[in-house]
Amino acid sequence: MSFNTFGRVFRFTTWGESHGPALGAVVDGCPPGLTLDEAWIQPFLDARKPGTSKFTTQRREADEVKILSGVFEGKTTGTPISLMIENTDQRSKDYSEVAKAYRPGHADYAYDAKYGFRDYRGGGRSSARETAARVAAGAVARLAIPEVTILAYVSEIGGDRIESFDAGEIRNNPFFCPDQAAAARWEKLVDDARLAGSSLGAVVECVATGVPAGWGAPLYGKLDADLAAAMMGINAVKGVEIGEGFNAARLRGEENADPMRPGAGGSPEFDANHAGGIAGGISTGQPVVVRVAFKPTSSILIPQPTITREGEATELATKGRHDPCVGIRGVPVVEAMMALVLADHKLLHRAQVG
Amino acid sequence: MSFNTFGRVFRFTTWGESHGPALGAVVDGCPPGLTLDEAWIQPFLDARKPGTSKFTTQRREADEVKILSGVFEGKTTGTPISLMIENTDQRSKDYSEVAKAYRPGHADYAYDAKYGFRDYRGGGRSSARETAARVAAGAVARLAIPEVTILAYVSEIGGDRIESFDAGEIRNNPFFCPDQAAAARWEKLVDDARLAGSSLGAVVECVATGVPAGWGAPLYGKLDADLAAAMMGINAVKGVEIGEGFNAARLRGEENADPMRPGAGGSPEFDANHAGGIAGGISTGQPVVVRVAFKPTSSILIPQPTITREGEATELATKGRHDPCVGIRGVPVVEAMMALVLADHKLLHRAQVG
Amino acid sequence: MSFNTFGRVFRFTTWGESHGPALGAVVDGCPPGLTLDEAWIQPFLDARKPGTSKFTTQRREADEVKILSGVFEGKTTGTPISLMIENTDQRSKDYSEVAKAYRPGHADYAYDAKYGFRDYRGGGRSSARETAARVAAGAVARLAIPEVTILAYVSEIGGDRIESFDAGEIRNNPFFCPDQAAAARWEKLVDDARLAGSSLGAVVECVATGVPAGWGAPLYGKLDADLAAAMMGINAVKGVEIGEGFNAARLRGEENADPMRPGAGGSPEFDANHAGGIAGGISTGQPVVVRVAFKPTSSILIPQPTITREGEATELATKGRHDPCVGIRGVPVVEAMMALVLADHKLLHRAQVG
Amino acid sequence: MSFNTFGRVFRFTTWGESHGPALGAVVDGCPPGLTLDEAWIQPFLDARKPGTSKFTTQRREADEVKILSGVFEGKTTGTPISLMIENTDQRSKDYSEVAKAYRPGHADYAYDAKYGFRDYRGGGRSSARETAARVAAGAVARLAIPEVTILAYVSEIGGDRIESFDAGEIRNNPFFCPDQAAAARWEKLVDDARLAGSSLGAVVECVATGVPAGWGAPLYGKLDADLAAAMMGINAVKGVEIGEGFNAARLRGEENADPMRPGAGGSPEFDANHAGGIAGGISTGQPVVVRVAFKPTSSILIPQPTITREGEATELATKGRHDPCVGIRGVPVVEAMMALVLADHKLLHRAQVG
Repeated sequence: MSFNTFGRVFRFTTWGESHGPALGAVVDGCPPGLTLDEAWIQPFLDARKPGTSKFTTQRREADEVKILSGVFEGKTTGTPISLMIENTDQRSKDYSEVAKAYRPGHADYAYDAKYGFRDYRGGGRSSARETAARVAAGAVARLAIPEVTILAYVSEIGGDRIESFDAGEIRNNPFFCPDQAAAARWEKLVDDARLAGSSLGAVVECVATGVPAGWGAPLYGKLDADLAAAMMGINAVKGVEIGEGFNAARLRGEENADPMRPGAGGSPEFDANHAGGIAGGISTGQPVVVRVAFKPTSSILIPQPTITREGEATELATKGRHDPCVGIRGVPVVEAMMALVLADHKLLHRAQVG
Repeated sequence: MSFNTFGRVFRFTTWGESHGPALGAVVDGCPPGLTLDEAWIQPFLDARKPGTSKFTTQRREADEVKILSGVFEGKTTGTPISLMIENTDQRSKDYSEVAKAYRPGHADYAYDAKYGFRDYRGGGRSSARETAARVAAGAVARLAIPEVTILAYVSEIGGDRIESFDAGEIRNNPFFCPDQAAAARWEKLVDDARLAGSSLGAVVECVATGVPAGWGAPLYGKLDADLAAAMMGINAVKGVEIGEGFNAARLRGEENADPMRPGAGGSPEFDANHAGGIAGGISTGQPVVVRVAFKPTSSILIPQPTITREGEATELATKGRHDPCVGIRGVPVVEAMMALVLADHKLLHRAQVG
Repeated sequence: MSFNTFGRVFRFTTWGESHGPALGAVVDGCPPGLTLDEAWIQPFLDARKPGTSKFTTQRREADEVKILSGVFEGKTTGTPISLMIENTDQRSKDYSEVAKAYRPGHADYAYDAKYGFRDYRGGGRSSARETAARVAAGAVARLAIPEVTILAYVSEIGGDRIESFDAGEIRNNPFFCPDQAAAARWEKLVDDARLAGSSLGAVVECVATGVPAGWGAPLYGKLDADLAAAMMGINAVKGVEIGEGFNAARLRGEENADPMRPGAGGSPEFDANHAGGIAGGISTGQPVVVRVAFKPTSSILIPQPTITREGEATELATKGRHDPCVGIRGVPVVEAMMALVLADHKLLHRAQVG
Repeated sequence: MSFNTFGRVFRFTTWGESHGPALGAVVDGCPPGLTLDEAWIQPFLDARKPGTSKFTTQRREADEVKILSGVFEGKTTGTPISLMIENTDQRSKDYSEVAKAYRPGHADYAYDAKYGFRDYRGGGRSSARETAARVAAGAVARLAIPEVTILAYVSEIGGDRIESFDAGEIRNNPFFCPDQAAAARWEKLVDDARLAGSSLGAVVECVATGVPAGWGAPLYGKLDADLAAAMMGINAVKGVEIGEGFNAARLRGEENADPMRPGAGGSPEFDANHAGGIAGGISTGQPVVVRVAFKPTSSILIPQPTITREGEATELATKGRHDPCVGIRGVPVVEAMMALVLADHKLLHRAQVG
């Protein structure tokens, strides 16, 4: 089954393919009376937009969003908000090769196995272009959670980690990197991979501050479970951690504890945040911390053995435009998914508890 | 909002607390005509059962399941299957301390912040006892996917990894460990932690073989996204990986590729399985591989600073029975969640594609 | 697919068959802190209980409910509330006839066509006994909507309508009839049908007062659409009307209008309530009015032509215990479904609008 | 909460307002490989299109649909199908009156009570224009159920019923009326109401033949319950009946029975279809029969007492374009909802039963 809706009460549905006329999202369940126009959404799309540096795909898309419904006199009405982004750079290209054979690591074979055929132009529905719709929807979600600040960044590319953190640096380099020195190293690292026709993986971290204690839902709508689904559903993601993540498996109980002390204003103060702001599926009031692993782009110029649709052996190198490190542009997407999950859980919480 | 249902067409709903009279699951959407009785479910529960070695909690529960509906003359009827497990060892204990103060790392504070109060006896709804309901439901799910074999095991405790793999060893030791030498080391490791009043984390791996290509659903009901939600929703889990997971972020595109070659019977043969059997959210026919990080049990005898319900400083050590390494008993739970997700996706696939 | 869950944020799942050991409901999403015990639920079950007069089935069931989870120290905790009712009068009976042939008007043939076989004892899952679970769940729902008063009654049996309305009369007769004279006529009417081995249909009306303006949801979660689904999903129901219902199709626009005037306390006063308290899928603050048609019980002693499971012609008369007018006991069930829908929409409304 | 998605596995989400730039639907879960283009959908939209006779609103809309995604080389791909219809005749009009006061019988007051404000232009989201999106989605749904034939017609206007049935007549008159004589009477009836500035209600019947036995789902996803929700969710609908409907409440058990006899090809033959093709929530193989009551259009030229947004008394007559009998154009909408429900249940059935 196709299933293109996410969320329980703050929901969105996306549609569109890489080379169709447009793509979009329908955001449903948004609270009424929020100030919304295209100008609010556009900067988030611009941050994700391809073609802005040599470290991303050279496809040129304006990624201009149009609001087609759900807003009246500059405010959300509470009815569905339809967001559309037209595709403008579906470059005429020869797709005969990719139509006939499966790109290793791509969804080509799996789509054919499921549906019997596929829209092979630019990856069709499995293209990273779909994430533009998530980013647009995420911009709307932010309006529903003004108390929350969301910040994502790349913490690692090709195994090279950041060693310092300066939030002010994140938008100063093409990598969303909070460490000036790491950003400088990554310029060469990513460019070398690009020139070699290869690609690199990356780790994106995302921190949401201002989430009050109490959002989330035991036991099958846990905040962390929904975040895991949200992040693992992004193209190219292979791993998700909350707080200490896999490292927690290597700590002893007393090392992983988050002791509490009386804090200002009645809320507790925590000595640590190994839990990443979530206990028992419910937010604790600490920052919510998620870490997401992006695999290296499967589209590489280095030929790989593969098979044709008829099952015969062949070799394939993915020509054309691609991101040498798709994790970089994952930053605005991870932020959007965080916003969408939190908006949903804020509304769910007040549904039950008032 | 409370949300205790999982799945889309093969669904289950769990209920029950640690110290209530019983707990259970209602399995809905199960195909009709499958042979089911209590004897089929019981061994899965027995594998999860506490009190079987000194490496698990000493609570003694028979964990006997009763089927209350949905089965007639030994076969599933297609209507809801109600499974109930009575609690028999809710030892009379003094809960006054835990009623008054929050155990660090536990859900105590978050539940109070959300609901205003909580059932503090044994952790209430946030107790690992709830996983018995998942295991029972998972046993039913296995009937719907006879083509699939699911095998989980502990690959790492307290940072000590297995170095060899022998499936036959897994049930020969109290750790579900496939490496005899590691199991021997872990005896001392876990016992030392237990005696020190501490606890250890663990990593559980799960492999499902026999999953045909084509299960899963782009883009918000991806097989990997649903697996991530399923696993992250288990108590104490802080990380989930599919296939290469976080390591994929450290590989180059050509290292992470899964080249294909013509295989027997029309299906391709893959040179590698970095993808963990899922591409674009859809199964590829390779084994589905998931890795799950369990944090060390938060219940430790080493006192931690914390606060009372009134917000005053205090110290708390969790007395009473606890698992020194809760990840161990996570093995049957991870297997159950894998079965439940796969059963759902098998049915979803045939809903859309026939 | 089997689908036994109803509701969006205030949800319940029912399970159980006529002749299994028990039946029940799991209520999920209930607000925390509400005072709940078995004594609150029992009177609602007693109102639905069979065997209380000669006008209902002679099956004797105590219908005692047990709360198995979700309540602590007399209050709902916000986690799932498991309600169980044991079956005590599954009289040993010869089911060989009904096992072999299909009772006309019953679900027997449809179940076999869908599932390949069926639990034929007392109708299995399609038995009206299932409605006990709805009534128990509905009693919980009422706690979430203390501002609302729900009142249902029988307005018509076998085509004989009430001509006056006195709410105080409703519980004074075995028919939930608000008209003393009609109740007297119905005694003979229903008894004659019973003695003739026949059965009668009925119309149940339900009025909810105190519903504030604003509950409901355009456009596919409309309050009236959800009420229609809730009522049509009750056994034996064949029609649902809101407000003027089918009669609205026979009125002119000016006759069907509900003119508004300034009312006390800022709310409008309406000159009429043809709309039944719902406009555009959203409550208007007027009483919500629903009318539900119950067909005559299909189980009659008058033999009907039918076929066997092997497709051969035969005749069948339903022996044993049955309700001569199943609509009568539908009154508490209709009230329960009204409460469940309203509780869900109250929570949904505050989810979006706060 | 806003909730604009309908269906479980074959789902659609609609968006758009009367006077926005466009409206549309996203169809998700559609089986792959079905032949689909705009030309298939257009005739269904044309049947619903306003402005085709003096018996419908004079708003002129081309109602041209564009497929924006989910179709490749003329076939559905299994991914979401985005359908868009641009609004072209949002006539510049003075809405100041309706902005200030509530039209009686309309959703104006309820929307304001819920959301605090509303898009008052042409009724915004509550406009009957939204049904264009349903009709477009329904056209796609028909492709998934080629075995089924759906036929709806008007059986009654303003209390004047048809007395004969000729399917061939339905498209020969502007009323979708199967009775030539009734159609002639209705010309005068509807025109008189129109000239008097009044409006009339109508009853629409819909019959689906070819539905095999076994679709549907006990107990909360019953085929009849889903049909009731689908129909009651259409603008202006106030009542829904399955088969004999309310009349069943006036029949005796033996009159309402549908006796079975051995039929050709192993399927039973039924002597009657009082059940309307559904027993126990599951189709029986007989025609599925639904009857839907449309109230008279609330927009009438006859002034009605009402209140302003500030709560002051005033009078309002709805000027401008309106349908004198909105039930007429309900025919293609009822057919569409029938198709959407049946497609969903076909897929659900094969999900569970294979």
